[in-house]
Amino acid sequence: MDIIEKIQAGDVRAAARLITRVEKRDPEAIEIIKAVYTKSGKSRLIGITGPPGVGKSCLVGALVGEFRARNLTVGVLAVDPSSPFSGGALLGDRARMSDHTSDSEVFIRSLASRGASGGLSAAVNDAADILNVFGKDIILIETVGVGQGEIDIARIAHTVLLVLMPGYGDTLQAMKAGIMEIADLFVVNKADKPGAEKTASELAGAQNLSCPSEVETTWIPPIVKTSATHKTGLDDLVVEIFKHFDFLDTHDVIQAKNRERRTKQFLDILSRQILDEFMAELDKDPALQRWVKKIGNLELDPYSASEQVVGWMKKARGAEKDLS
Amino acid sequence: MDIIEKIQAGDVRAAARLITRVEKRDPEAIEIIKAVYTKSGKSRLIGITGPPGVGKSCLVGALVGEFRARNLTVGVLAVDPSSPFSGGALLGDRARMSDHTSDSEVFIRSLASRGASGGLSAAVNDAADILNVFGKDIILIETVGVGQGEIDIARIAHTVLLVLMPGYGDTLQAMKAGIMEIADLFVVNKADKPGAEKTASELAGAQNLSCPSEVETTWIPPIVKTSATHKTGLDDLVVEIFKHFDFLDTHDVIQAKNRERRTKQFLDILSRQILDEFMAELDKDPALQRWVKKIGNLELDPYSASEQVVGWMKKARGAEKDLS
Repeated sequence: MDIIEKIQAGDVRAAARLITRVEKRDPEAIEIIKAVYTKSGKSRLIGITGPPGVGKSCLVGALVGEFRARNLTVGVLAVDPSSPFSGGALLGDRARMSDHTSDSEVFIRSLASRGASGGLSAAVNDAADILNVFGKDIILIETVGVGQGEIDIARIAHTVLLVLMPGYGDTLQAMKAGIMEIADLFVVNKADKPGAEKTASELAGAQNLSCPSEVETTWIPPIVKTSATHKTGLDDLVVEIFKHFDFLDTHDVIQAKNRERRTKQFLDILSRQILDEFMAELDKDPALQRWVKKIGNLELDPYSASEQVVGWMKKARGAEKDLS
Repeated sequence: MDIIEKIQAGDVRAAARLITRVEKRDPEAIEIIKAVYTKSGKSRLIGITGPPGVGKSCLVGALVGEFRARNLTVGVLAVDPSSPFSGGALLGDRARMSDHTSDSEVFIRSLASRGASGGLSAAVNDAADILNVFGKDIILIETVGVGQGEIDIARIAHTVLLVLMPGYGDTLQAMKAGIMEIADLFVVNKADKPGAEKTASELAGAQNLSCPSEVETTWIPPIVKTSATHKTGLDDLVVEIFKHFDFLDTHDVIQAKNRERRTKQFLDILSRQILDEFMAELDKDPALQRWVKKIGNLELDPYSASEQVVGWMKKARGAEKDLS
């Protein structure tokens, strides 16, 4: 049995090992991923994002329970450095999560946020595809909602939950830049604390500003109040998630979302591979080294240098007709 | 007088306008930047980074005062979405900062963290070069220390300050991934609050783990306790910053840092330009469109597709000898 067959047959260790190799960008693992890619596409990807401290990991844990209770298999990919899955947080949190670590239908995996964000986003894409082929119905991707790289990772998901907590109305203004737009659902977690209603209505207010028209055909992100620790509001949240799944299906949005994700993934891989290629060339070509040194010495500006390299590449354009 | 001459002569509005155009990636402004680039290289760049809420902006304001008192001209580039400079925070903070907005030798500018992080980092590089040619001795770059993109921006600076506050020892573990390594100075701000000493010694402990040898030749990041609001510890901080400047000079580290920054800047611009080129090609070539669609439909994996494009480019390699 080859690795993909093993993973398809439900071999947890084979899946875990391939994710580890993919995270290290092992060239042989990337070869395997090529085949994994064409076999993927069945799972629903849910992104859970938001600022640190709002209880994202706890909510992920609670959602795992909700989906399992509905007989769905679940995979968790945690890329939040402060997530207990990723090993950043307190032992107490980690113990709370261990409810699910003994359930064989739950696959939990953290991905290091170390290194270039491009590399991380590639690893998350690949790990999601592996869990897909592994047969998970739902894949939860937890990422801290600060920074463009992290927002890009959340966008891999079909359904994005933006998690806030009471008192986070003030930061909304700042978060609007980038993250409000990508949320399909707003969650006010820790809703047992005072101010939950206020945060929810501030969210609703911000929404009214941003989507005034086309009410019938577009999705208006619902606002759900939860307490992951007290297990309240979770049923409502799952109902809204399923509603979003239905919306994606009935409006053919899912194909558009998938295409967008895959095109972006391709372009990310392409730009990385071109840079790698250039660096390899630089390593062995002294003339190129002298040329790049001129940039470092402020004799040649990086824009003109880049235009020159693009010029070289344009000369190869004739070959581009060879599309198979 | 052309724009660069105006900026060199100290025309604030010309400098501000060029930064705005560069931020929008206006092609004409990029042409001007090519000449700005080769004239830059005199200013010292200081990066100020750290988690939200530790008082980075307030510290930036205090540092501006310290440098001005030493007769140095200062530019501030704020890319932190929660910074009062960037307009994200409370009015009270903004008022506090206005101490310096009337000083003509202080240039304060925020850069939107909206859009792709690659674009932001390009804009920061260019804005820093403009302030350089504008004649600022010191350029402070404030960025929130969460997310790889933001860390990359801090790395543009010659001297990186990682700002924490009492009680942030717990998060150190998580922050170690990426941000501890790039800090040249640690600042425990809000040191009037309880626990400053504990945070400082936790930092010292983390340091002892990571740099055990080569004590004589390498820089060991000092830990400085400050209170930006109460104006304590600022003199110590400036002394340590100047010590780091000396270290950079005496060990020829500054050339290496500059070369590294410029090579990275070139590679970022190159990968963006290649993608733009590819997208332009995609726009007008139906065969290429059909080919990319196969990726979206999971018929062709993005790794193989990327290898194919790199293959086309390799055919152009003969032209690479044309290095001028």
